[in-house]
Amino acid sequence: MSLLDRVRVVLIETTQPGNIGSSARAMKTMGLDRLHLVAPRLFPHDEATALAAGATDVLDRAVLHGALDPAIADCQLLVGASARRRGVALPELSPREAAAALLDAARGGVEVGLLFGTERTGLSNEELQRCHACVRIPANPAYSSLNLSQAVQVLSYELRIAALDSGEVVDPDPEAGPRERPATSAEMEGFFRHLDEALHAIDFHKGKDGTTITRRLRRLFLRAQMSEREVAILHGVLADTERMARLAGRG
Amino acid sequence: MSLLDRVRVVLIETTQPGNIGSSARAMKTMGLDRLHLVAPRLFPHDEATALAAGATDVLDRAVLHGALDPAIADCQLLVGASARRRGVALPELSPREAAAALLDAARGGVEVGLLFGTERTGLSNEELQRCHACVRIPANPAYSSLNLSQAVQVLSYELRIAALDSGEVVDPDPEAGPRERPATSAEMEGFFRHLDEALHAIDFHKGKDGTTITRRLRRLFLRAQMSEREVAILHGVLADTERMARLAGRG
Repeated sequence: MSLLDRVRVVLIETTQPGNIGSSARAMKTMGLDRLHLVAPRLFPHDEATALAAGATDVLDRAVLHGALDPAIADCQLLVGASARRRGVALPELSPREAAAALLDAARGGVEVGLLFGTERTGLSNEELQRCHACVRIPANPAYSSLNLSQAVQVLSYELRIAALDSGEVVDPDPEAGPRERPATSAEMEGFFRHLDEALHAIDFHKGKDGTTITRRLRRLFLRAQMSEREVAILHGVLADTERMARLAGRG
Repeated sequence: MSLLDRVRVVLIETTQPGNIGSSARAMKTMGLDRLHLVAPRLFPHDEATALAAGATDVLDRAVLHGALDPAIADCQLLVGASARRRGVALPELSPREAAAALLDAARGGVEVGLLFGTERTGLSNEELQRCHACVRIPANPAYSSLNLSQAVQVLSYELRIAALDSGEVVDPDPEAGPRERPATSAEMEGFFRHLDEALHAIDFHKGKDGTTITRRLRRLFLRAQMSEREVAILHGVLADTERMARLAGRG
């Protein structure tokens, strides 16, 4: 099993079926074959098959999802491809850094995902909020419009180079000790729901709109790449906080 | 003038006009715009224009040649893209090495060329013999068939990264905005003290020794490299938590 087998490419609401096919081809040339499609406009489709050329097996095994969350629920590191610099304060990685981070995580035995948004607008802010980091191909500022499959090609290429450079060996680092299992995306979402409830119980927002704060806290905790155990500890803190709010006659 | 302006991409006997268009687009996204076409089967062509998207200016300025030699006559370093290992005794460079070599030469003031053969068979041995080196994208041995424009994308990408790394191309960053000030160590310690007090107020440790948990939470929050603003938000959460504990008759 290659390290690249733990990397899934998630294409979200792809409009042109041809782009799905070219992306599958781009992936396969670089040794990636785990494609997840979230609500593609047209799939399966002749154009996708035609442009996949010899990579129709990647299309055949593609997993279809109606929404993003099920596509990433079991992923423990998510990197979103972003065509431009964003207002969201998410760590921005270069393609090379992103490849290293994804493979590092995969080396720890976890599933990782590389997310691509729809052709015209890329990932939405809501989708980026699921991500631990974003990756930006440093394109020509005067014309940064890479075709979807070209972006998939460049990032798959960097993943392959990183895998080759590392010898693709799953390297059990004797000094690292047993690493804690990173929290999955579903576990993080459960934590964020609990956090929202607790903030409500202690009346943190004081009647004001809490969206911005909530989003900031999401980013902070995603950035920390928490382990399952850390999430459990924080659930405990939130539970005790809610208990106090109840005793105080609130919540 | 950017160093990348001295790099020409030479497409030889391209069969599909769409590939010329996608290659132009791939080049422009990476800041390359000097395209030379040697005996293309169909050019100009609607399909080339369509797939060039916003890069039709690259097509408009493309230089057409009837044969290879005039396309490269004034070039002083030529690197040929090769899909597979060849019998020709030419130095084989990785994409990263090729980008470095091309830019090094360009830095010396010379024109350099990156050559791509026809879609089906790539560069002929005769064409490769014009080259100083060849470059091979280390593709999946089981499926190494990159589309022409995907190969152009990967190699243009490496050229851009090499140019950016050497400081010869500088990406302006108009959208980055002022970054938030990272929290100082003293601010983090202040936060950890407050966290300890709040955990005590909500009786999180239930009489047990909380040292391990406290240490874990420190690591978690330090790892997140919080900003001053994020620390302020969490102080607010802790203050409201303590308020609830007081209302509950504790703390």
